[in-house]
Amino acid sequence: MANEVILLDFWPSMFGMRTRIALREKGVEFEYREEDLRNKSPLLLQMNPIHKKIPVLIHNGKPVCESSIQVQYIDEVWSHKNPILPSDPYQRAQARFWVDFIDKKMYDAQRKVWATKGEEQEASKKEFIELLKTLESELGDKPYFGGDDFGYVDIGLIGFYTWFGAYEKFGNFSIESECPKLIGWAKRCLQRESVAKSLPESEKVTEFVSELRKKFVVE
Amino acid sequence: MANEVILLDFWPSMFGMRTRIALREKGVEFEYREEDLRNKSPLLLQMNPIHKKIPVLIHNGKPVCESSIQVQYIDEVWSHKNPILPSDPYQRAQARFWVDFIDKKMYDAQRKVWATKGEEQEASKKEFIELLKTLESELGDKPYFGGDDFGYVDIGLIGFYTWFGAYEKFGNFSIESECPKLIGWAKRCLQRESVAKSLPESEKVTEFVSELRKKFVVE
Repeated sequence: MANEVILLDFWPSMFGMRTRIALREKGVEFEYREEDLRNKSPLLLQMNPIHKKIPVLIHNGKPVCESSIQVQYIDEVWSHKNPILPSDPYQRAQARFWVDFIDKKMYDAQRKVWATKGEEQEASKKEFIELLKTLESELGDKPYFGGDDFGYVDIGLIGFYTWFGAYEKFGNFSIESECPKLIGWAKRCLQRESVAKSLPESEKVTEFVSELRKKFVVE
Repeated sequence: MANEVILLDFWPSMFGMRTRIALREKGVEFEYREEDLRNKSPLLLQMNPIHKKIPVLIHNGKPVCESSIQVQYIDEVWSHKNPILPSDPYQRAQARFWVDFIDKKMYDAQRKVWATKGEEQEASKKEFIELLKTLESELGDKPYFGGDDFGYVDIGLIGFYTWFGAYEKFGNFSIESECPKLIGWAKRCLQRESVAKSLPESEKVTEFVSELRKKFVVE
């Protein structure tokens, strides 16, 4: 059976970026379909009736939902090249732990940086920087989170990097001066074709966040 | 190397129950250590410095945190018997989706049933029943969530069953009349030694919840 792969996605989504990267790591051809989140397609609602969220990966007509689960699925189905999760069970558990940590903490924390102002924003920035420092400390001096090879945690985190410019602009702070090693890691990831092709331009994301901020924050 | 397995846990935790069941499914001997959550042990803080939460599985001195990750780890390390996750990648992704759904929705939803009162409680009960009906509809007429065999989603959900008596008592409703198939499934799970040995008595949990409710709800 031919592999028909469709990705329902939304271009600034750091979660959609994970799945794009994983598919490209494996060399899987896929049809990218942009969703209008204010007017979701019938296909999206049919394929993800529980959460009604992008990204949705549709493989030969069958949906896989939730980006971290999609990445694991892609790694298991296209296991012939570029392993994403480590083969050792303990290292797999550690990789899953950090992606779960990112899932539980990063989205809400980053949102507060650009969607608040005043004292609330100052507290949010502090909390966000602490989070980044926790991740940076886990990275340590390794080239990638899993060691020498690009993998699951890198894919889990790198999408946020395209949003960094927006955090810095609306939060008025420098992430590089707080977390230089993390920026070095992000630049290293961007040298991979799978990543470079899957991440939108930072300026475009900043413009997008600027529009969102106007909706959420009355200056 | 001998396998030294320690579980830092707290008896009414539906998350700890998952890990206890998984270890027993695999026939792994383990040392159970009860934690006092108001006075966490130095070992817990050392082994799970990020979340500082139980359960923590310590295998030959190395920690694995987060119950769903522990269950996958146990399945991968002790792969010789009673597979927990299905072998097919698509079914694995579906099983992960439902455990992720339980993780994202169930804990907060159930908490509101017993930790609120009046109109808020009525709304919470409605939401909680909808959640259970979503799970029941996924179960359908299968004996277990994965089909004929007890597995990952069953382990992910069954711990909540010991709390059902408390939800019914403090919410004043019957789960069985709303979701009879789900109750049938739970009774089926309880026939397994791994489950029966890992779940505390429902009455004991109800007593525990009664104490919690006194703290959170002023009648």
